[in-house]
Amino acid sequence: MFYIIGLGLCDERDITLRGLEAVKGSSRVYLEAYTSILMIQKERLEAFYGKELIVADRDMVETESDEILRNADKEDVSLLVVGDPYGATTHTDIVLRARSLNIPTRIIHNASIMNAVGACGLQLYNFGQTVSLVFFTETWKPDSFYDRIKENADLGMHTLVLLDIKVKEQSEENLARGRKIYEPPRYMSITQAVSQLTEVEEKRQSGTLAPDSTLAIALSRVGGGPEERIVAGTLTELLAAPPETYGEPLHSLVIVGKRLHHLEVEYAESFALNRETWKDVAKRVYGCALD
Amino acid sequence: MFYIIGLGLCDERDITLRGLEAVKGSSRVYLEAYTSILMIQKERLEAFYGKELIVADRDMVETESDEILRNADKEDVSLLVVGDPYGATTHTDIVLRARSLNIPTRIIHNASIMNAVGACGLQLYNFGQTVSLVFFTETWKPDSFYDRIKENADLGMHTLVLLDIKVKEQSEENLARGRKIYEPPRYMSITQAVSQLTEVEEKRQSGTLAPDSTLAIALSRVGGGPEERIVAGTLTELLAAPPETYGEPLHSLVIVGKRLHHLEVEYAESFALNRETWKDVAKRVYGCALD
Repeated sequence: MFYIIGLGLCDERDITLRGLEAVKGSSRVYLEAYTSILMIQKERLEAFYGKELIVADRDMVETESDEILRNADKEDVSLLVVGDPYGATTHTDIVLRARSLNIPTRIIHNASIMNAVGACGLQLYNFGQTVSLVFFTETWKPDSFYDRIKENADLGMHTLVLLDIKVKEQSEENLARGRKIYEPPRYMSITQAVSQLTEVEEKRQSGTLAPDSTLAIALSRVGGGPEERIVAGTLTELLAAPPETYGEPLHSLVIVGKRLHHLEVEYAESFALNRETWKDVAKRVYGCALD
Repeated sequence: MFYIIGLGLCDERDITLRGLEAVKGSSRVYLEAYTSILMIQKERLEAFYGKELIVADRDMVETESDEILRNADKEDVSLLVVGDPYGATTHTDIVLRARSLNIPTRIIHNASIMNAVGACGLQLYNFGQTVSLVFFTETWKPDSFYDRIKENADLGMHTLVLLDIKVKEQSEENLARGRKIYEPPRYMSITQAVSQLTEVEEKRQSGTLAPDSTLAIALSRVGGGPEERIVAGTLTELLAAPPETYGEPLHSLVIVGKRLHHLEVEYAESFALNRETWKDVAKRVYGCALD
């Protein structure tokens, strides 16, 4: 059996009992590399499982899937991923490959940012499509995400914005010389994300992301653990807050849609940088009936 | 501490280790009633935890929250819910109440239908808002869900349709006589859901849910367990399939949006009632470039 096992969002104790059983019974256990550079440390997982883990970066999962799947028709093999196997990064390719090799596959689900984002107090069923925001460079500022946010906003829906992660990047020199030396990983911060959003708003001017009248909620290390931070405010307020407000990566951002319920406002109020502007904008701009 | 703990989707082994620790350390453990009538049996959970569970129906969670929260500032109390605490049914009220009583709250996340729906092969980030479909009666056929599906469809997005559950319903006679006798629980089936969708399409005629050219995916007991069923086809095909095709409740339905990727088609093809029509409609109506 080939297992793809979601690890959840915080630490080694977020695996399910079903997942842990599969890990313990597997002859090889792969850990998708995004995992090991995040909250969940490889060594900590290994100590917890009493088992060696083989690190598999995205490349390996995509191009060396036959090695990962080797003998999985005769013995159990597991691939561990942060969040849920069908989270932001999907594992369609390797499942299709397993199928074509007649290897039975089982998915062990867990929480991912796609549902744990509910922790910010906004109703999940009012979220529209999810958007990814990549690091802008001097010369490359792809802004199609803006159209997606606008599509959601025009219908009154919230948008979850996933922020870019750069791992295994090579400097131009190392790339040119074919040296497999990688830069340290980079994670987009809330401050950088909001700065990019407002930069595009300035160009587009549709008002979708008007800095003083768009509410947003920043999430860091969401998952119910002690490092979770949730911070709400206008885009202007989020941009002005000191970076340490948001804690350690990963960060995600939610753009609040106009179909906002007063209970959502009330729930998120405790996360607000400034409760007065939070309620004021919710009333005045979003039309929420608050006391 | 007051814990709200997601149980995941299948059985008692889908709780996380973090969740299990909290249950074991709690002096009172409540089980939200939706749970006990579904896949996860109360008695089975009690045996597994070695602990008695107090069943709390939705009414109790909403109106007797102070009893549930009693002493949670001095000892640990847990509320168990199917899926994730921020799934389709949210727990905003009781968290706000805990806050106002200065009781610290911790959420223990898990998979819910909102992210496990990825198992059908469609990308989660291409889903729009989620829609609920209630049982039609002779005289009451609320159809605003249709506008929501159309909003998503017009943007090319997929729609997750959550199907109605009726628990603790009283017959008109029992209600009139004030007898607390409840009818057996009812769960909307895929067949009934598709029949309601096409009934509204016939009235509205926008083509959003055209029976022969709209693709949909039915999910039953999703969560990676042995009872999971995923079935794909046109609305016409899903309606014509024998009810047993879909297995036991709960059922959910996904309406496939036009922003469909060929990998999504390929992945879901193995769930198709008829692979030929599945691929044909994907190509012809959805414009997917397939081999």
